Amino acid sequence: MPDLRKDPISGRWVIISVERGKRPSDFGMRISAKKGGFCAFCEGNERTTPPEILAFRSDGSKPNTPGWTLRVVPNKFPALNIEGNLNRSGEGIFDRMNGVGAHEVIIECPDHNLTMSTMPLKSVEDVLWAFHHRITDLKRDVRLRYVLVFKNEGDEAGATLEHTHSQLIALPIVPQLVEDEIEQAKQYYNYKERCIFCDIIHQERLSKERLISENEDFIALAPFAPRSPFETVILPKRHESSFMPDGKVHLMAQILQKTLKQIDKVLDMPPYNMMIHTSPFKIETNEYYHWHIEILPKLTKIAGFEWGSGFHINPTPPEEAAKFMREAEI
Amino acid sequence: MPDLRKDPISGRWVIISVERGKRPSDFGMRISAKKGGFCAFCEGNERTTPPEILAFRSDGSKPNTPGWTLRVVPNKFPALNIEGNLNRSGEGIFDRMNGVGAHEVIIECPDHNLTMSTMPLKSVEDVLWAFHHRITDLKRDVRLRYVLVFKNEGDEAGATLEHTHSQLIALPIVPQLVEDEIEQAKQYYNYKERCIFCDIIHQERLSKERLISENEDFIALAPFAPRSPFETVILPKRHESSFMPDGKVHLMAQILQKTLKQIDKVLDMPPYNMMIHTSPFKIETNEYYHWHIEILPKLTKIAGFEWGSGFHINPTPPEEAAKFMREAEI
Repeated sequence: MPDLRKDPISGRWVIISVERGKRPSDFGMRISAKKGGFCAFCEGNERTTPPEILAFRSDGSKPNTPGWTLRVVPNKFPALNIEGNLNRSGEGIFDRMNGVGAHEVIIECPDHNLTMSTMPLKSVEDVLWAFHHRITDLKRDVRLRYVLVFKNEGDEAGATLEHTHSQLIALPIVPQLVEDEIEQAKQYYNYKERCIFCDIIHQERLSKERLISENEDFIALAPFAPRSPFETVILPKRHESSFMPDGKVHLMAQILQKTLKQIDKVLDMPPYNMMIHTSPFKIETNEYYHWHIEILPKLTKIAGFEWGSGFHINPTPPEEAAKFMREAEI
Repeated sequence: MPDLRKDPISGRWVIISVERGKRPSDFGMRISAKKGGFCAFCEGNERTTPPEILAFRSDGSKPNTPGWTLRVVPNKFPALNIEGNLNRSGEGIFDRMNGVGAHEVIIECPDHNLTMSTMPLKSVEDVLWAFHHRITDLKRDVRLRYVLVFKNEGDEAGATLEHTHSQLIALPIVPQLVEDEIEQAKQYYNYKERCIFCDIIHQERLSKERLISENEDFIALAPFAPRSPFETVILPKRHESSFMPDGKVHLMAQILQKTLKQIDKVLDMPPYNMMIHTSPFKIETNEYYHWHIEILPKLTKIAGFEWGSGFHINPTPPEEAAKFMREAEI
């Protein structure tokens, strides 16, 4: 069973993942994304993944056989285990609990050669629906408080398999970064009685300096204080506290794929991380927090200054990044 | 002038460093630590660095000429500028100030082939003294509130030059990570009237499970909730709120070098980051915060889950890491 431990000084939680247990000698050979060769995520190889949790199959084919357009399977090397009790406990001054949670992989399409920016738009819509279905299902588990959906594209961004996929980790605690955002958003709301994200969208639509693109329902922006060059955030234009593709999945998929195409064009298919921030289960509907997608191209290295301060040094002003993105011919 | 910007949602500060300004095409060629060839930090090449701020020269040689055992010079590509006013200002909902601060490089010894774990112990002592002298000097600048001392060893840890060196960045704001630690430590002190670090040291000396080494004045521990495999923290055993080598520089250098030798032995000279956390200038002497050195070997990748949650997944329990470190034959 993995161990969830809290650092009493920073308040940071850490997953000590014994299933992924590594001895010093394991660190010598760096694991790189598999290029070519056998792929467990390709059509026909369904038996080599753990049994599927969800699949989209329009042809009525059987589970764990070919015929799917999207599959969700448990991660073979999960950071957290779905079985067991939390057993919150102390060890003197320290706090820990069992690493209970879910770790799933969304295999976004059967074709090994496509990415989220080159797959059919319908597949991007399916991915968004799959996120929604899995979140809705995991919400029923009373031990869990949050689902973080994320995607690692490229070796440098932490992907260990090449075939296009996203992941989700369901957690028994709300992650600190989300808590921090909620806290700031709440303080702002208490003072202004307005959502801080709605106010940012309003200001950015007027100034246009950091605007990347928009459609009827969504907007893509370069944040005012981006952690890395070409960081991009996608938000629904009208206030919405939790991720929900209902009624507007097409426009959501459209702006997401457009943004990824722009990033691929401007930066020549860089590695990137993508994360969805949404409200925790317990406060699913609220006036102060606004769900969004964050995309972080992996272009700079996290070094001692960043580790020690929490500051980031970004060599590209977001106003310039937004301009490059707007002008990308895609 | 670099720009210091605050993200209103996360509260995170970012340095937009125009001096390090990069266009998309610059990201293609990744800068790697220079191997071989001309080195600006080697003896004889003093004129190729900005003029030295501090140097240790026992032979009475002139500034910016050979004869030194340690040099401190401004970073040629500084993240912050020492000239100018802060000009705190708003831009609608956003907050910014000029990127005023210092960014200096400590060239730890003249020999290109040594590292902090192989240089003479006297050189490690000199490095610690240099940190102290520079902090003491920068403290006099009323615009500044904090100095973060750090070291990036190896390409993967963000080093761009091979010759052994540390850096410091002096900031007009206290970094968020330090603020968070201080806040937690204060809360603990208010409740218990004891320093949380002192209590941790006491508990870890009893259990010995995560103890790596100790001498009369210092202790090296694997933290209970380490962010990465083999993370190590070095603390003074008696309460001390700010970094100060006085009277015990020899024991400080000894445990630091021993720890680095153990890491090099166990992990075959891995890239690593080292950071010093000390009290901010304004609360230099206090009862609740305890200065320490953090060492983070760079063995895992920061991916979407970490970026989105602030959680870290660590595949090596600290109890095992501490055991490997204790048993390393150095």
